[in-house]
Amino acid sequence: MSTPKPVTTLKTGVAIIGAGPSGLLLGQLLSRHGIDNVLLERRSGEYVLSRIRAGVLEQGMVDLLREAGVAERMDEQGHAHTGVELAFNGRRVRVDLAAHTGGSSVMVYGQTEVTRDLMEARQALGAPSYYQSEDVTPHDLESAAPYVTFRHEGQDYRLDCDYIAGCDGYHGISRRSIPEERLKVFERVYPFGWLGLLSDTPPVSDELIYARSERGFALCSMRSPTRSRYYLQVGLEERVEDWPDERFWDELKRRLPQDVADNLLTGPSLEKSIAPLRSFVVEPMQYGRLFLVGDAAHIVPPTGAKGLNLAASDVNTLYRLLLKVYHEGRCDLIPRYSETCLRRVWKAERFSWWMTSMLHRFHDREDFDSRMQLAELDYLTSSEAGLTTFAENYVGLPYESLEP
Amino acid sequence: MSTPKPVTTLKTGVAIIGAGPSGLLLGQLLSRHGIDNVLLERRSGEYVLSRIRAGVLEQGMVDLLREAGVAERMDEQGHAHTGVELAFNGRRVRVDLAAHTGGSSVMVYGQTEVTRDLMEARQALGAPSYYQSEDVTPHDLESAAPYVTFRHEGQDYRLDCDYIAGCDGYHGISRRSIPEERLKVFERVYPFGWLGLLSDTPPVSDELIYARSERGFALCSMRSPTRSRYYLQVGLEERVEDWPDERFWDELKRRLPQDVADNLLTGPSLEKSIAPLRSFVVEPMQYGRLFLVGDAAHIVPPTGAKGLNLAASDVNTLYRLLLKVYHEGRCDLIPRYSETCLRRVWKAERFSWWMTSMLHRFHDREDFDSRMQLAELDYLTSSEAGLTTFAENYVGLPYESLEP
Repeated sequence: MSTPKPVTTLKTGVAIIGAGPSGLLLGQLLSRHGIDNVLLERRSGEYVLSRIRAGVLEQGMVDLLREAGVAERMDEQGHAHTGVELAFNGRRVRVDLAAHTGGSSVMVYGQTEVTRDLMEARQALGAPSYYQSEDVTPHDLESAAPYVTFRHEGQDYRLDCDYIAGCDGYHGISRRSIPEERLKVFERVYPFGWLGLLSDTPPVSDELIYARSERGFALCSMRSPTRSRYYLQVGLEERVEDWPDERFWDELKRRLPQDVADNLLTGPSLEKSIAPLRSFVVEPMQYGRLFLVGDAAHIVPPTGAKGLNLAASDVNTLYRLLLKVYHEGRCDLIPRYSETCLRRVWKAERFSWWMTSMLHRFHDREDFDSRMQLAELDYLTSSEAGLTTFAENYVGLPYESLEP
Repeated sequence: MSTPKPVTTLKTGVAIIGAGPSGLLLGQLLSRHGIDNVLLERRSGEYVLSRIRAGVLEQGMVDLLREAGVAERMDEQGHAHTGVELAFNGRRVRVDLAAHTGGSSVMVYGQTEVTRDLMEARQALGAPSYYQSEDVTPHDLESAAPYVTFRHEGQDYRLDCDYIAGCDGYHGISRRSIPEERLKVFERVYPFGWLGLLSDTPPVSDELIYARSERGFALCSMRSPTRSRYYLQVGLEERVEDWPDERFWDELKRRLPQDVADNLLTGPSLEKSIAPLRSFVVEPMQYGRLFLVGDAAHIVPPTGAKGLNLAASDVNTLYRLLLKVYHEGRCDLIPRYSETCLRRVWKAERFSWWMTSMLHRFHDREDFDSRMQLAELDYLTSSEAGLTTFAENYVGLPYESLEP
């Protein structure tokens, strides 16, 4: 037996748990304003980058990435989309996002790329990051002197800090560090999942197509002009092994309008995976000096691509809050974090739930519900106001202010 | 035993079954354009007038009543409402209908009054009406020579006609005359009803208030500046006898924002009744030479007051169709009746279902659904586009054209 090494003590302003895009983005914004922060991540950087995730960024997140100084490659390689298509009843309707929002758009640029840009920027700044940290544990959250313990490369650490940002996702330690009785949980589990396929084929359309069909929902998305991402609604009992590429492509074609199906270019999959759909929110999003950010506090079903964007809006709120705290001593604003985030979170939860409800097939539902879906799509696409509600939610509602 | 009297044969253009507001309005419009019609009604005129029904008329119905020449008293005694209130979470938000629809409004004028005006107008024209007709039965609907048999004051009649308008409501004979296998039924029964109370008290507010509360839905409505109509969501197992006036007023106050409850003037009820809530549509709305109009083909829950108005839009479609048929020989348009009506029917069904879903308490639902209701109300009332979708549906979407 070796003698235990003494604990190394570190000190920082903000301890950030989780090096996904929200933790990295928060760190970057804080570092640029001289607020010390340390990033702790359970996994390796390579692992984080290997996760295939969303790729549609709201206007607000795009602006925030620019503010963080990490937008160069996005602005060069990303694709601004000023429209999106809804397909139903054999019809395709394009929603002109820009025309209905005074010029806003969304940016198609993979989450993996965002993460890579942020990692490089953090490295360039030399801001401290501890990847592959084990047993990351927040302590004394209700005190004025919280700290985080973790083990890294065999060494035990204690990180003293002013605040902790819990950016470690749904399964992370941050939310679980809050006494259960202090949180109220809201949850909806949908009776289906999404089977996603990534392929090096040109996208079937320049813009995303959200398709409702009697066989279930389908989505045509993309990462770049040569890389496509397609999704199929599948039952929860389905397994990836049951879906050889050929079956995926066949089923996708049957769910798309004929002219789209005819133009679909297929190819071998680079990746295939099934994700369940869930709506989840905890209230409040803070406890003492711990702030929950993004998936740690809320999950949306992927319809409408709000997950990453909602995390970015939490980052925006926490960043502006910490600026006020560190630069203006406005500690009175601290209790407002949760309510400020939640105003926008619930609206995005609503939009994601609504889009999911309108476009998916629910086996347990009656014919009446199916007609309500079609009536909703029909009304939505035939009314300027309806199109505007869709567009303004899709590009992202305005960020909420801490001081309304 | 008396010798059976011989059958009296009558002849007309359009046989109208049902002398509610839709049958009467259709008859009036046709008569003014020289199209012969005969009205058959199972009940007495007094009975028809005794039914307490809706009292909010869409702009389109108001215009149609004016076109029918029966708007004089409505324009004098009715009250144009340019706004409506949504109450939730202790807040009241006024939706400015006029501002969001380019000047449209709704007219508060009781269905009973509309019916009375139409009855008087028909009498003045001397158009034939057979109230208290028994055994009204349509025949040979698929032939070029349909007819209706009925008994009136002991006499048997046969009414030969070109077309039959089924304006006899959900329980009427018209829909039941169509072979069951030719109709597709869409239906939703809600797990609650509305308990309505009519009183000679001044309304608590100049405009309608739709209130969502944790105790269930409530509606403050009115018929005139001295007559109020209030509603409470109640369980399906509730009976009117369980609701003495005092209990009704107490419960109503608990469901309204405090300032509204404080201003509520109570008084003895003139009428109290419980109505179930239902969504119902049959497709198609025509069979041979029979056209279904209003409740005979579709029912909406009362939230949003679309029932009577939807009947009026069917009347509008059938009236314009018959004008084209009789004056221009455009029989090619006949098959378009159902699809023309249904486009608008489904949108109104959607709006009524959506308002019902957003404002009522569903005991079987989770906390998540309750938050979705609040998020929907919050988004709706904070977005110009959201307010516009509400307003344009509430004042009534445009009438659909037979020739798109």
